[in-house]
Amino acid sequence: MKIRVGIVGATGYTAFELFKILLRHPHVSITRATSRADAGQPLEMVHPSLRGVLPLSLSEFSAADFSGAVDLAFCCLPHAASSVVVKELLNAGIKTIDLSADYRLNDLASFSENYQADHADPERLGKVPYGIPELFRDEIAASDLVANPGCFPTTAIIPLVPLIESNLLDPIPIIVDSKTGVSGGGRTPKLAFHYPECNESVTAYAVGTHRHRPEMEQIVERVTQQPIKVNFVPHLLPMDRGILSTIYVQPKTRIKAADLLEAIRARYVNETFIRVTNQLPATKDVSGTNFCDITTRDLNGQVVVLCAIDNLLKGASGAAVQNMNVMYGWPETTALI
Amino acid sequence: MKIRVGIVGATGYTAFELFKILLRHPHVSITRATSRADAGQPLEMVHPSLRGVLPLSLSEFSAADFSGAVDLAFCCLPHAASSVVVKELLNAGIKTIDLSADYRLNDLASFSENYQADHADPERLGKVPYGIPELFRDEIAASDLVANPGCFPTTAIIPLVPLIESNLLDPIPIIVDSKTGVSGGGRTPKLAFHYPECNESVTAYAVGTHRHRPEMEQIVERVTQQPIKVNFVPHLLPMDRGILSTIYVQPKTRIKAADLLEAIRARYVNETFIRVTNQLPATKDVSGTNFCDITTRDLNGQVVVLCAIDNLLKGASGAAVQNMNVMYGWPETTALI
Amino acid sequence: MKIRVGIVGATGYTAFELFKILLRHPHVSITRATSRADAGQPLEMVHPSLRGVLPLSLSEFSAADFSGAVDLAFCCLPHAASSVVVKELLNAGIKTIDLSADYRLNDLASFSENYQADHADPERLGKVPYGIPELFRDEIAASDLVANPGCFPTTAIIPLVPLIESNLLDPIPIIVDSKTGVSGGGRTPKLAFHYPECNESVTAYAVGTHRHRPEMEQIVERVTQQPIKVNFVPHLLPMDRGILSTIYVQPKTRIKAADLLEAIRARYVNETFIRVTNQLPATKDVSGTNFCDITTRDLNGQVVVLCAIDNLLKGASGAAVQNMNVMYGWPETTALI
Amino acid sequence: MKIRVGIVGATGYTAFELFKILLRHPHVSITRATSRADAGQPLEMVHPSLRGVLPLSLSEFSAADFSGAVDLAFCCLPHAASSVVVKELLNAGIKTIDLSADYRLNDLASFSENYQADHADPERLGKVPYGIPELFRDEIAASDLVANPGCFPTTAIIPLVPLIESNLLDPIPIIVDSKTGVSGGGRTPKLAFHYPECNESVTAYAVGTHRHRPEMEQIVERVTQQPIKVNFVPHLLPMDRGILSTIYVQPKTRIKAADLLEAIRARYVNETFIRVTNQLPATKDVSGTNFCDITTRDLNGQVVVLCAIDNLLKGASGAAVQNMNVMYGWPETTALI
Repeated sequence: MKIRVGIVGATGYTAFELFKILLRHPHVSITRATSRADAGQPLEMVHPSLRGVLPLSLSEFSAADFSGAVDLAFCCLPHAASSVVVKELLNAGIKTIDLSADYRLNDLASFSENYQADHADPERLGKVPYGIPELFRDEIAASDLVANPGCFPTTAIIPLVPLIESNLLDPIPIIVDSKTGVSGGGRTPKLAFHYPECNESVTAYAVGTHRHRPEMEQIVERVTQQPIKVNFVPHLLPMDRGILSTIYVQPKTRIKAADLLEAIRARYVNETFIRVTNQLPATKDVSGTNFCDITTRDLNGQVVVLCAIDNLLKGASGAAVQNMNVMYGWPETTALI
Repeated sequence: MKIRVGIVGATGYTAFELFKILLRHPHVSITRATSRADAGQPLEMVHPSLRGVLPLSLSEFSAADFSGAVDLAFCCLPHAASSVVVKELLNAGIKTIDLSADYRLNDLASFSENYQADHADPERLGKVPYGIPELFRDEIAASDLVANPGCFPTTAIIPLVPLIESNLLDPIPIIVDSKTGVSGGGRTPKLAFHYPECNESVTAYAVGTHRHRPEMEQIVERVTQQPIKVNFVPHLLPMDRGILSTIYVQPKTRIKAADLLEAIRARYVNETFIRVTNQLPATKDVSGTNFCDITTRDLNGQVVVLCAIDNLLKGASGAAVQNMNVMYGWPETTALI
Repeated sequence: MKIRVGIVGATGYTAFELFKILLRHPHVSITRATSRADAGQPLEMVHPSLRGVLPLSLSEFSAADFSGAVDLAFCCLPHAASSVVVKELLNAGIKTIDLSADYRLNDLASFSENYQADHADPERLGKVPYGIPELFRDEIAASDLVANPGCFPTTAIIPLVPLIESNLLDPIPIIVDSKTGVSGGGRTPKLAFHYPECNESVTAYAVGTHRHRPEMEQIVERVTQQPIKVNFVPHLLPMDRGILSTIYVQPKTRIKAADLLEAIRARYVNETFIRVTNQLPATKDVSGTNFCDITTRDLNGQVVVLCAIDNLLKGASGAAVQNMNVMYGWPETTALI
Repeated sequence: MKIRVGIVGATGYTAFELFKILLRHPHVSITRATSRADAGQPLEMVHPSLRGVLPLSLSEFSAADFSGAVDLAFCCLPHAASSVVVKELLNAGIKTIDLSADYRLNDLASFSENYQADHADPERLGKVPYGIPELFRDEIAASDLVANPGCFPTTAIIPLVPLIESNLLDPIPIIVDSKTGVSGGGRTPKLAFHYPECNESVTAYAVGTHRHRPEMEQIVERVTQQPIKVNFVPHLLPMDRGILSTIYVQPKTRIKAADLLEAIRARYVNETFIRVTNQLPATKDVSGTNFCDITTRDLNGQVVVLCAIDNLLKGASGAAVQNMNVMYGWPETTALI
């Protein structure tokens, strides 16, 4: 038996990764792919890599159309636009995994402050499970809507939760210095992502103002019930994909890098997609995979935690499929290894 | 004594290279830099690399303004827009080097056919020296206007002229298979030049229709008085700058690669910027320079000619400054080595 | 039921791709991975991406060891070293897919001339099926040894066979101008592949002397029974993977690009992995896939054929698994889509 | 009048940059370029970009040979090897700028601990001026030997000195998270710098053990007479050149990012090569230049200082020429702007 899947906002990079994964999924058949701008075009016009593989035409989204044709929708729209559609999908009885930021934060106030936009579905804020199954598996399994996590937050939340839970850190601000490939910026042409601008260059951006900082703080607090402060600086690197986060923490006296790593290892000992290792992770080692590689190092009294993911997979579409697998009770690695 | 230079269309990559070269030029002072969209902004807002080096503000172009402030203008506007301004510059008595394609072709018919645009100054077509000093030095020295060459044509015309002049080739179509970096596509964001689209990829484009093909043919014919046919296929490569053209020619019986190379060497023996070599040229060897590196290889009866330049220098702004040096009688390498 | 697979020479890029594909293959279990230099090390030391996924240790190759533990071997050794091992594998009754060049050419003379090396198994030369299933499916299905094709030859042979078979071309030399990513050069550090040398640069190499030229000629002749001459110039591009070949052919009078494309389409109409298209193929569109994308364009009387593959997949390990699928009668796309 | 310059260890990237800069220098003539491995070869064999520009042959180094032919030597040898040669150069009365680490640290103990090597000239340790003219101009002007600074330390020392001097920071460890291009690793092929390994990837390396950490600490202390602690994590990025250091400091109460920036600006107000800016610096903005771009940002009570240089110029050869200019009393920007 197969479920019918629809992808809303099918022209970007996260949608493209979803298509590739879902084509390998034994329990899924892709029945809808929507785009406002390219409705009517064959999917392969916007994703030539899918030539001959997925003979689907792009259509304009409507809840009525999805109603009889889709069991689960992945929503890949921009923030604010997403909640409008998600609300309609849920009303039509369609399970939904939302890859936007619309349902990740605790409340309307923090959404409004960080995204400077209206929210179409504010009453659900704070009640939607956050889509890291390693932390929220039961809630995800029981829900019709999942807020798929942000790429940077994934690299911070996964290693930080066990450290906060285990009470191993001094309560000073945690520094998250992240390095990302350009696909994280989406597929819309902009000068900052124009090849000769970002190639052969590295720069920080959105320093102190990036919207993923409150997401990191709120989700760690949601799990651990302890407040944390994160100082977050993202950097844009000349590569397609991958995130490496270099996280600086202050352990309590006599706590070492090895102790922190052991706490992380113990927390995730049964988690296939979290690989705790003694090697320094490179983003290439997780590229094209749903893995999250983590290690730690002593640093003159402080400890640095290094965490690498593929921003489009464990940081977006891989996690989304993992969440779908949880929602349907399929083996969590289905189509992901 | 210094001349006063103005740059029209100062926000793109060729303008940026001009600024860098001209700042080193002992006989030049930059007095104007224009931009319609960014008029009023300091130049360093659009070229942060010039921070503190060139404290100039962008202004809107007007011939009246240039009239008392500029002796020579480099015009870096798009085709069709350029001739409008060039005509005004010349009328105001300002020497001009036009980096657009507007004055390169022989006549209005071929301009219209290839550029699908009106031309503001059609009567000058065919009378403006083409800015390869190694081929048109005397005309350039005597002219108030120079048509700066296209990047791809430079790599084809320089090696082909001596081969045609020497009557060494069979008259069959010459294949020019060119590989270019992305800066050749300009600084305006487009999906084709969006980092995650063109990084880690190579593709041909404008196959059989690229506007630089007639430019190659007409200029070689202008020098040699012999008709040639070129089949031209450009390719977009994931790098900032550089062009390598791989040119396939059919030599007459018993003519070898070494003979062709010798003809090229003899023709340019006194030319500093043309380096005839036995090594296979890499674009990196000419990157950041005004050199043009050429070699030849036998290939089963055919000969392949390899020619490498920096598309933004010998293929654009380096050649433009070389032309200025010729126009003013300064040593041709001034500010270029 | 699963077969047991061993990989000889497991530390390079083609072996790495094999591991990734085979881990998804429902009928395969990987039982051996060999390396002389790293024997005893866990596989994840040389391929960190396989951390936790394939808990195998590298061993030194011996036919005795493979004898009871391996049903089919992929041999990823360098040329000349490979035939030594292949002979032992076959003697031990182990089916073998050889990714080296040792069994591709027609005879010892051409092997010796092109590879300047001894051959351990000369009597098999000319009798081993060449591993393009789209052309040699029956021989592959019936054989215990397959000569997996070279990456560049794959891009030339697939489009050229139907053109020669259909008698659509004039018998003049065919030009194959190929552009490859750096992984094609293997994993051994060399100055030519040192990041700051090949990044931001393009160069031709092995012009007129590359060993893949005779392979192209011999295999096309083997299928079509017609002699052809190829002039082959490979270029090294700053990207990890992908090959685009730009092939210049001279069609007979009145034959057009569309006719050539139709001949190619007709020949491969039932072949999943060959995608004949009207779009210009980019290597990114086939990256990470086993597809081969082909189109044609008219060019002033000539025709250019463009063919793109992933050099490590359809050009190496993807083709190897496809060959295994054929040898065992499994659906040819198993683990490849 | 020109001085005669020799370059010892002429085959690497820093030597190549020296050649390019010195060719533009009006007071310098390059008379020697040495290499043990390539002695006898023309320089253009190892640096094809210098074809026809610098007709010099590589020679083996000897102090006797340099004695009559060289006034000033740039020594580009690896650490430990360098001091052997530097000692000979000084004994022969030749001014020397040493680009290795041999004369940067305070004493033999810290050299031995960090470099695990013998030192040929230990008595000079601690007495050689450190080659940041913005901090040690008078000592450099008066010395026959300069210890050219490390690339990473340059990005930390320049912004940190004014902050420590002004007593604006709390005395907790300063975090320096640096991102560097691959040329910083030198020109010797290694797996870590093999194109398909480091392309499309980012990784941290030498975490907590990099030799540039003590250099940062000792030099800041030498200038400010205050002890500091640095936690340093370098990262390798897929680009040729450039370093961006993201420096996390804890300002005293009520001190803001703007105050820190003002202190930096005031300290370097007369320094051409230090550009204090309100924009976030990208390495591309300093690529190919001797500039050091600095800004600061508030971060939830902490402050982040961002500093960008070209690792081969302000981080190596540009600084070296700047030091030469100081030693000879020429304008400091000669050949550098």
